[in-house]
Amino acid sequence: MAGISAALTLQANKKSFLIFGSAELSDKISKAEKIHNYPGFSDVSGKELVSALKSQLLDANIAVVEEKVTGVYALKEKFTLLTDTGKQYEARTVILATGVESIRLIEGEEAFSGRGVSYCATCDGFLYKGKTIAVVCTSKRLEHEIGYLADFAEKVYLIPMYKNVEIERDNIIKIQKMPKSIAGGLRVNRLIFSTTPMEGIPAELPVDGVFMLRESVSPAVLVGGLNVVDGHVQVDRNMATNLVGCYAAGDCTGRPYQYAKAAGEGNMAAHSVSAYLK
Amino acid sequence: MAGISAALTLQANKKSFLIFGSAELSDKISKAEKIHNYPGFSDVSGKELVSALKSQLLDANIAVVEEKVTGVYALKEKFTLLTDTGKQYEARTVILATGVESIRLIEGEEAFSGRGVSYCATCDGFLYKGKTIAVVCTSKRLEHEIGYLADFAEKVYLIPMYKNVEIERDNIIKIQKMPKSIAGGLRVNRLIFSTTPMEGIPAELPVDGVFMLRESVSPAVLVGGLNVVDGHVQVDRNMATNLVGCYAAGDCTGRPYQYAKAAGEGNMAAHSVSAYLK
Repeated sequence: MAGISAALTLQANKKSFLIFGSAELSDKISKAEKIHNYPGFSDVSGKELVSALKSQLLDANIAVVEEKVTGVYALKEKFTLLTDTGKQYEARTVILATGVESIRLIEGEEAFSGRGVSYCATCDGFLYKGKTIAVVCTSKRLEHEIGYLADFAEKVYLIPMYKNVEIERDNIIKIQKMPKSIAGGLRVNRLIFSTTPMEGIPAELPVDGVFMLRESVSPAVLVGGLNVVDGHVQVDRNMATNLVGCYAAGDCTGRPYQYAKAAGEGNMAAHSVSAYLK
Repeated sequence: MAGISAALTLQANKKSFLIFGSAELSDKISKAEKIHNYPGFSDVSGKELVSALKSQLLDANIAVVEEKVTGVYALKEKFTLLTDTGKQYEARTVILATGVESIRLIEGEEAFSGRGVSYCATCDGFLYKGKTIAVVCTSKRLEHEIGYLADFAEKVYLIPMYKNVEIERDNIIKIQKMPKSIAGGLRVNRLIFSTTPMEGIPAELPVDGVFMLRESVSPAVLVGGLNVVDGHVQVDRNMATNLVGCYAAGDCTGRPYQYAKAAGEGNMAAHSVSAYLK
């Protein structure tokens, strides 16, 4: 919602921009049964709100770029963005509107990020050719990334955090339990499930790497040097982060996780960006 | 918009509250020809958005109390509110969502506030029995207050800042020019229009008092001790002002004056109030 709001206002301000995400817009909104307190809509369903937002973007000639941003690098007065397609983009400013994942970071995840923990199948998949990896996946929409990884790895432990898992491969072993922690030495070497073995679930598994496939990469991992406290990007009243030219809006900046707040912050961030570009 | 958003969220949070304003909700929104960047509505007219908000309030069983708050007094852990009907209300917390008046303060207005400058006809009208007053009025909806004042005062100089002035009285003299400043000694004694006399407009007028009839009273005048900079209530990310228990949201907290921002801030303020009341 924050990203859409920012995009609508940037378009109104005649700024040149790209919005990255899914053409389906927001899983979170779509799944909402009824929304009561978003001003202007009485008892709207999440699906109806998403449909209204879709037609608004269409009317405003805004097309969502369906790529997942996997890294944002702050360079001198510009940013370089990498996406899961391997493409590279440059921008003078960035608005982070990543939302929050309902799944917390796993213990050890941040510590081993870049040392066996990866967020991008297409970026790092080839590193695990013939190896054993674990894949924690939060959304059915990301199943193609699991398939991509299974093409390289010899063995894939899949921990799906969504229903109706469809992917089937000889080298994919499904585990219906969230790991407790990621452990290792210099690099990841195992995934720990339990200190007391449970039926059908191993206490731990030896792995060479762990892929965390989420709809969005957490801001702390996405942007190096970003000030993130308790999983929330720190912003001021203008939605500016600690990095010059980098703004954030919506759930990723903190509670309440509400549509109206996200819309308001996206609007504010777009105005701040417009002012910054002058 | 900020007040409506706050009310919807307070209702969802099962808080007991009153929302003061007009059943017509917002003149500002109503007058908007087209709104493009409020998420969820593509090319909506202001009238359509107001109508959607009205039915949402109706569905949520929220009725606007049609009184104008003329003073907010912070007492020990509670607030006392006075309205233009002479009624008094008590509240543990207050959310200011006054909007911003498009008309600036007149020079001398703040300095003479309480010393001849008044914002409330029903509160202070009787003080001017048999006297000469000026009335600056920004909205046709406030014409009844002019009539109320004309019942007391001997002479009323009316400076209407709206079209289609209807009120006619023998003791009302209309002047179609905004005064430059309010002047006096211990108390107001004159209204200054120009240093160089213009045809049909006096350079200055002797007056015993000046009534500023606006849709809402400016926050600085409304709440004593409130931190207001350049006409904007200073708030933190939680929409808290410098006064404990007093929050603010929407245009009154600063630019951009946008519906989405106002909706977001109202939502945030309501959440902060709910947390504060715990």
